[in-house]
Amino acid sequence: MAKRIHLEEAASLLKEKDHILILTHQSPDGDTMGSGFALHLALTQLGKQARVICADGLPTRFQIEPLPDFSDFTPELIVAVDVADAKLLGDSLQEYADCVDLCIDHHPSNTEYAAQLLLRDDSAATCEIIYDLLLEMGVTITPLIAGYLYMGISTDTGCFKFSNTTSQTHRIGAELIDLGADYVRINVRFFDKKSKNRIALERQALDSIRYFFNERCALMVVSRQMIVESNTDESELDGVSAIPRQIEGVEIGVTLREKENGSYKVSMRSGEQVDACAICKMLGGGGHMRAAGCTVEGTEEEAIRKTVAAIAAYTNWDGE
Amino acid sequence: MAKRIHLEEAASLLKEKDHILILTHQSPDGDTMGSGFALHLALTQLGKQARVICADGLPTRFQIEPLPDFSDFTPELIVAVDVADAKLLGDSLQEYADCVDLCIDHHPSNTEYAAQLLLRDDSAATCEIIYDLLLEMGVTITPLIAGYLYMGISTDTGCFKFSNTTSQTHRIGAELIDLGADYVRINVRFFDKKSKNRIALERQALDSIRYFFNERCALMVVSRQMIVESNTDESELDGVSAIPRQIEGVEIGVTLREKENGSYKVSMRSGEQVDACAICKMLGGGGHMRAAGCTVEGTEEEAIRKTVAAIAAYTNWDGE
Repeated sequence: MAKRIHLEEAASLLKEKDHILILTHQSPDGDTMGSGFALHLALTQLGKQARVICADGLPTRFQIEPLPDFSDFTPELIVAVDVADAKLLGDSLQEYADCVDLCIDHHPSNTEYAAQLLLRDDSAATCEIIYDLLLEMGVTITPLIAGYLYMGISTDTGCFKFSNTTSQTHRIGAELIDLGADYVRINVRFFDKKSKNRIALERQALDSIRYFFNERCALMVVSRQMIVESNTDESELDGVSAIPRQIEGVEIGVTLREKENGSYKVSMRSGEQVDACAICKMLGGGGHMRAAGCTVEGTEEEAIRKTVAAIAAYTNWDGE
Repeated sequence: MAKRIHLEEAASLLKEKDHILILTHQSPDGDTMGSGFALHLALTQLGKQARVICADGLPTRFQIEPLPDFSDFTPELIVAVDVADAKLLGDSLQEYADCVDLCIDHHPSNTEYAAQLLLRDDSAATCEIIYDLLLEMGVTITPLIAGYLYMGISTDTGCFKFSNTTSQTHRIGAELIDLGADYVRINVRFFDKKSKNRIALERQALDSIRYFFNERCALMVVSRQMIVESNTDESELDGVSAIPRQIEGVEIGVTLREKENGSYKVSMRSGEQVDACAICKMLGGGGHMRAAGCTVEGTEEEAIRKTVAAIAAYTNWDGE
């Protein structure tokens, strides 16, 4: 069990130490990267050496400016940001799983793997906590730091749209804008732009939508053929699986994505009534209550049948 | 020319009078309706009679709670909210075009048709101005009033995503959440749900996308036939016109919507380099720098040609 600490203690710890290694989670998102880069810039500002690493590298998508060459060093303090479970560090960073000194996180599911834990599960994003932490540390929030914090907050809240958004999220958003965050460009990058290929793919995927259980379930297929024909790559598929659940009246939205080996990756999103994680567990997967996933073998029709059968078994819905 | 007045003067005027008629613009959106309903509730709270009208009726989509039966009266004060031009009151309300006593608006293109004008063109939404106005009037912002103001602000900013969003927008958003705005439900209604019909329409509209000027301009057509085949109504078309501009590399996104009389309503969205309002003015329309509109007569091909010609004239772009 981790020792739960407060903001002041985390701030003192970071100010005391030098050579700080910052760990982010695998399949990185805006919040883990924003937290990592903002903390790195803050520590550098205080004259310290710091370095951000991720099992999947540091995607340019999450870089507002080109990063400095992080110099290698023997870490005096190891900090994990937005990492709920040591497993989520990814295979290549498992060497650090048992030696994280400080974890800063907002996930209620945090497994307390770190020696000390600054957890605020009422924060919409870890970047909200980092913002308070940097102020506590006396760091000057530059426009670039503000930009990274804004990126984390906006990406974790769907640009202030999801139900995790609070008045505090907006207040911090306002401060970051006033501090010079390049929020217009960040919003365009993450929320306003789709590639031509993506648009072509969506058009085909929309054609595949089928309804089950009196339209309470919508199922969409993204086949290899669609991916090849539209020339989309992995990074362009972000958010596609949210589409079926967005249809009015639909309580379970399912997207089946054909993998290169011919099996199907199932993404399931649910409304307030349904535990998507429970259904996906029946198919060997897992996830969150409202967003879960699994992998199903077989042809397209078989994969659909298995998925729909699991939904029927869980919900007892008629009308397939 | 309207007399420009300040918040305090507008507040005094509203407090002095009774029997206040509130006019909203045709093809109503969340901001004009949110402004109207919030102002109506505020005036009722102060013991006054007030009534909201719109040339297109009061769509349930913009009602958080069922509306009271507005009683008829001879107005002592006529107020227009979010109405940039008397023409936008619509045909059936043209009787009021020359007798608007007070206009409250945020459009820089406001034509100053009203006797007195409270214009703040740095506000993202008219609801931002109404919020300040209600505080000035000493109104208690109830959860319902807060909800209507939140609706106007969030719909006019794409949920705090568009470039018109400012730190002040977020600060007011935070206050409205703390005052009890049912923001989670409002966000789901306006940003998370699409009707089956809407999905069907989008599929067809995506098929119509054409590119001009080396793909710097994308143009999409929403024809009567698409609207009829997909069985969509006006209220389901919200946001469709944002699609072309979302395509990567596109600086001007244009949507041509065929009207029942066969003319085309042009919606134009632009990036940082282009003044969409200037282009639409060339075609007899107006609006904001980044989002403007006009009406163009003729067949589909003629409407496209006229629109593209105006863009060429403004931008001097080649490659049509």
